Amino acid sequence: MQALLLTIGDEILLGQTIDTNSTWLGQELNAIGIQVARRITVSDGLEDIQDALRYGWTHMDLVIMTGGLGPTKDDITKKAIASFFQVDLVFHHETYERILRIFERIGRPATEAHREQCFMPANSQLLPNGMGTAPGMWFEEKGHILISLPGVPYEMKSIMQDAGLPRLASQPGLIPIIHRTLLTAGKGESELAARLDSIESSLPDYIKLAYLPALGQVRLRLSAYGGQAVLRQQEVDHFADLIYQEFGTAIYAEGDTTLEATVGRLLQERGLTLATAESCTGGAIASQITSVPGSSSYYLGSVVAYHNALKTRQLGVPSEVLNQFGAVSEPVVQQMVRGVIQTFQADVAISASGIAGPSGGSPEKPVGMIWVAVGNGKDIRTCELRLGKDRGKNIEMTAVLALNELRLWLLEHQDVHGTGISF
Amino acid sequence: MQALLLTIGDEILLGQTIDTNSTWLGQELNAIGIQVARRITVSDGLEDIQDALRYGWTHMDLVIMTGGLGPTKDDITKKAIASFFQVDLVFHHETYERILRIFERIGRPATEAHREQCFMPANSQLLPNGMGTAPGMWFEEKGHILISLPGVPYEMKSIMQDAGLPRLASQPGLIPIIHRTLLTAGKGESELAARLDSIESSLPDYIKLAYLPALGQVRLRLSAYGGQAVLRQQEVDHFADLIYQEFGTAIYAEGDTTLEATVGRLLQERGLTLATAESCTGGAIASQITSVPGSSSYYLGSVVAYHNALKTRQLGVPSEVLNQFGAVSEPVVQQMVRGVIQTFQADVAISASGIAGPSGGSPEKPVGMIWVAVGNGKDIRTCELRLGKDRGKNIEMTAVLALNELRLWLLEHQDVHGTGISF
Repeated sequence: MQALLLTIGDEILLGQTIDTNSTWLGQELNAIGIQVARRITVSDGLEDIQDALRYGWTHMDLVIMTGGLGPTKDDITKKAIASFFQVDLVFHHETYERILRIFERIGRPATEAHREQCFMPANSQLLPNGMGTAPGMWFEEKGHILISLPGVPYEMKSIMQDAGLPRLASQPGLIPIIHRTLLTAGKGESELAARLDSIESSLPDYIKLAYLPALGQVRLRLSAYGGQAVLRQQEVDHFADLIYQEFGTAIYAEGDTTLEATVGRLLQERGLTLATAESCTGGAIASQITSVPGSSSYYLGSVVAYHNALKTRQLGVPSEVLNQFGAVSEPVVQQMVRGVIQTFQADVAISASGIAGPSGGSPEKPVGMIWVAVGNGKDIRTCELRLGKDRGKNIEMTAVLALNELRLWLLEHQDVHGTGISF
Repeated sequence: MQALLLTIGDEILLGQTIDTNSTWLGQELNAIGIQVARRITVSDGLEDIQDALRYGWTHMDLVIMTGGLGPTKDDITKKAIASFFQVDLVFHHETYERILRIFERIGRPATEAHREQCFMPANSQLLPNGMGTAPGMWFEEKGHILISLPGVPYEMKSIMQDAGLPRLASQPGLIPIIHRTLLTAGKGESELAARLDSIESSLPDYIKLAYLPALGQVRLRLSAYGGQAVLRQQEVDHFADLIYQEFGTAIYAEGDTTLEATVGRLLQERGLTLATAESCTGGAIASQITSVPGSSSYYLGSVVAYHNALKTRQLGVPSEVLNQFGAVSEPVVQQMVRGVIQTFQADVAISASGIAGPSGGSPEKPVGMIWVAVGNGKDIRTCELRLGKDRGKNIEMTAVLALNELRLWLLEHQDVHGTGISF
C-alpha cells in the first residue's frame, strides 16, 4: 500500500512552520506496513489542492491530507474535496451540537465560522476529534482511501491514534516492513560505504541499506520489503551480522537511542561517575551528557575553563605546562582529566582543548586542531582531531567524538568499576 | 518567480529525519522575493526523482533539489539530472583535487566513492561547497533554473548563502521585497500577536507581518512587496517604529544576529567579564555563550555543578541553605552567582537551577520550575520560570531566558563597567 502525504498551508511553504505532522505520519504508517511514497505541500489555494489530490488519487492507494480544516477563511480543503468528488457539502448536525457543547463548557459563544465548519462532503465518513472542533474525514472509493485531518499536530495525532491508524491497519493485504538501524560513531559516511561495498552488492533487491549521516555519526538502516515476515527478519538479521563483523565496536547501539544515552547506560551499569573539563567545546560536552534524563545518577558536573588562567586555578594545569606546550596540547588535556577527577572526585573524565575557529589558528596549530582526553586517574587515552573551519560544527563534532572515545575506553577497561555517587 | 522545493530521501518519507532544509529555504527565498509554490519529497528512486523534476521544470521557474549528492550508493540525484537533461556525466578534475586536499589535511585517504562524486552532468555550473565534498550545481535553460544541493543542512546552507542566494537575487524580473526583522526575546507569540492586533489591522495589503517563532524568541518580519523602494522603505520603517513603541527593550536587535551575540557585544563594549554557574541547564548556557566567535574576550568559563555537593564545594552554597530551601530555590541561585563571581573573578554572572524533567518534580516544585539569577556581587536579579515537561525544551528555553535576563540587567545598570580580562 503506497501513500501520499499532502500538507496544505502557506505557513509551511513560507518556512514559518516546520512540517512535523508528515514526519510523525511517516513513522506511524511505516510501522503498520504502509509505505509513504511521496510528500507534497501546497498553498491554501483551491486549484493547488485539487491538483495534488488528483495526482494522489490516481497514483496512490492512500492519500492523507493535513491542514485546511479550521474555521478561518483560508481553510478551503473541504470545498476542494467536495468539488473533486463532485458531491455537495451537507450540514452535519451531530458535529454542530458537539461544537456547541464544547463552547458552552468554556463559556464562550460559537461563531458563524464554527457553524460553517459543520458542512461536510456528502460522501465523507467522520473520524471523531477528541481534541478540537474539526473532525477528520475518511473517503473510500474503488480501493482508494483519502483521509483529511486538521493541521494542529495534537488534534491530527489524536484522530489518527483513536480512529485512523486502527482502521488503516485492518485493511487487507498489508505486509509490515522490517527494519534494523545500526548506530555508528566516529566513522565517516564514505569510509563506511567503502567497507560495506561487497555486503551492499550482495543484498537482494527487496532489502535496502540506507546511510543516515549526522555530525560524527552515521545510522545504517536495513529495510526489507514484502515477502514473509519471519524469513525477511532472518535475512535482515543475517546482513546486520555481517555489518557487525565489519565494524565491531564502531556500532554503539541499535534503533531509537543516542550515543550520550549509550555512554550513560555503560557508566550506570558499572557504577562509575563522570566529570568533564572543557575548553574550546565551551560546555557542549556537558550539555550533551545532561540531555539524557536521569544523567544526574552518574554525571557530577563540569569545569568549563574557557580562559587559560582557570585551567591552572580550577584544574591544576601547571602554568609551565601551558607556557611550554600551549593550551591546545596533549599534556594539557591529560592534566585537565586528572584535575577534574581530583576536584570533583569523579571516577572517569573527558577533556577537550582546541581551536574551534573561525579564527585564532597558527601554522603549527590550525583552526580545527583539537585535543581530547578520556580516562581515569591511572590510564588516560588521548587523540588529536583535525577538523574544519566551522566553529559550530567543530564544537558539536568534538563533543560526539569525545563521548565516543570515552565509550571505547570503557569497553577496553571492563575491569574498571565504581561505587556510584558517594557524597 | 515561483519555486518548487524538491527533497530526495527515504529517511524523510520514513519520518526518520525532519525536513528542516525546506523550512530554511522557504524563509530565505521569500526574503529575496521568490515564492515557494510547492514542496515535494520523493524516495531515492531514479524514476521518482525524474518524475518530480519533470513536474517542476514544466510548472515552475525554479526548482531547488536537496539530498542525494553524497558518496554512497543510494545517492542517485546526479544520474537522474543527467538523464533528465540527456547529457553525460563528466569528470570534474578541480573538484577531485579539492577533495584530495581536504583528505590530505585530515590525514586520511579519499575513497573510490569520492572519485565518483566528481562526475557531474555536462551542463552543470558548480556552486562551491566550503563545508563538505559535494559541490552544489546550477542548471539554466530557457528561463528555467534548477539548483541541486547536498542534503546535509550546514553544507546546503553554506552553498546557498555563499553562492546560490546571491545569484538568485540578481535574476532579472524579481520584484524587490523590503524587509525589516525585529528580534524579540522573552515574549510568547500569542502575547505579541494580541498586542500587535491594531498595528496589524492598519497594515496596507502590500505590507505583511510574519511571526517566526523559536524557543523563547520570536522574530517579527515586516515585508513590503512591489511599488517604489524608497516609499516602501519609509512605510516599513514607520510600522517598525510602532512595534518598537509597543515592545521597547523586548526587541534586542534587528536582522541577522543572535541573542548571545547581542549580549556578548554589550559585555565587550563595557569591558565586563562573564562567568556562569549551571545546574539543570547542564552547560547549555555556557554552550550558547561560546557559540559566538570571539567570546573568549569576555567569557571566562562555567562551573556546571550538576551534583548538589559541587554547589557547596565549588560555588560556596552553604549546605544549610541547600537543606533549608532545596537546590531549586532563589537563595541557591543567588549564591551560585556570588560563588562563581568570586571563584572566577568575574564581573557578572548567570546561574540556573531547576527541574528539567521529564521526572523528578514534586507538588511544590513541579517539573519545569526553574530559578535563574543574573547580576554582579552587589545587585542580583532573580526570576522563577514555570515551563513545561519537555526536558530538551526546558533546558534550551532556560538558556535563552537567562541570557535575556542578563541583557535586561545590563541595560538597567548602565553605570556598571569593567576593565576586561585582567589575569
